Amino acid sequence: MTTNTFDFVGGGHGEWKVISMATVSGQAMETVTHLDILPNLKNTLNRGIWTLTGFTSNVRYAEKAEREKLIAVQQDLGRPSATCAALIPIRKSEAWWAMAQDDRRRIFEAKSHHTETGLKYLPAIARRLYHCRDIGQPFDFLTWFEYAPEDSDRFEELVKSLRTTEEWKYVDREIDIRLTKA
Amino acid sequence: MTTNTFDFVGGGHGEWKVISMATVSGQAMETVTHLDILPNLKNTLNRGIWTLTGFTSNVRYAEKAEREKLIAVQQDLGRPSATCAALIPIRKSEAWWAMAQDDRRRIFEAKSHHTETGLKYLPAIARRLYHCRDIGQPFDFLTWFEYAPEDSDRFEELVKSLRTTEEWKYVDREIDIRLTKA
Repeated sequence: MTTNTFDFVGGGHGEWKVISMATVSGQAMETVTHLDILPNLKNTLNRGIWTLTGFTSNVRYAEKAEREKLIAVQQDLGRPSATCAALIPIRKSEAWWAMAQDDRRRIFEAKSHHTETGLKYLPAIARRLYHCRDIGQPFDFLTWFEYAPEDSDRFEELVKSLRTTEEWKYVDREIDIRLTKA
Repeated sequence: MTTNTFDFVGGGHGEWKVISMATVSGQAMETVTHLDILPNLKNTLNRGIWTLTGFTSNVRYAEKAEREKLIAVQQDLGRPSATCAALIPIRKSEAWWAMAQDDRRRIFEAKSHHTETGLKYLPAIARRLYHCRDIGQPFDFLTWFEYAPEDSDRFEELVKSLRTTEEWKYVDREIDIRLTKA
């Protein structure tokens, strides 16, 4: 059985080794040394020190032309060369969620160029978005990125540029966890 | 603790008595005589004959002007006069979910006038949308409506008019359950 729901288990062992954990905004998380990503259905035992759960879903903002560009260039997760990763759990404020779809879209793309910026770093940076606001989690999104060590500078550039956008003014909790394949 | 996730438990007892269950499209559901709606967190025992789980979430299509109109006229659930209800679980096809946000919005509102149609029946028909596609449920949405017996004809009109829209061509499973306060 396939699932769209995954547990990000932070603890003392796992497939990914934690290099750094930085609190960008809001409350910190307990430090861990390793991370495992497991299908939620099969994960009844391994809860680690903390577990963040999220699900993949349909696209919420990307329009057809943007989506076609993304599909054309994006890479799958799990490339052997992509030994660097980042898990960046994010929560947005109530003000963000109280907005209607068109207002959120306007800030997301017209003002903040979220998809356009992401596209600039494809195919080097592979990424996947997990949603968790609706399932009682402490974050709204778990953003996951994989890249090769030689693309580390480009990844820093991507993260930096998103954090200066108008969209990011609505981010009220953000933890930046960097990892390497264990 | 408040929750946004609710169980719709169909069985032999409950707050709502089932008047009819009709399979509009797709696979039928087992017939039940009653329905209870319970916060998912507190519901560890009562699973009934079937349980459908869904969560409330932010608006996905309504734009600011539409949303303000909705907020201005819509009524809360639980009005003493609203002794009639309908639970209409719906699943949309893979073709729907494969579309980008702008294409879905175009079919939802520009072509199918979903919000505009709903607005015509406010405040008589109170409704709430529960999402469940992302949490491994057999439906994508649980739509819930409450109204007074004297508004029954208007409710039939609303349901009929939505079912003739282009949006509804993407509905591949739909069960129409009518209820009255037990």
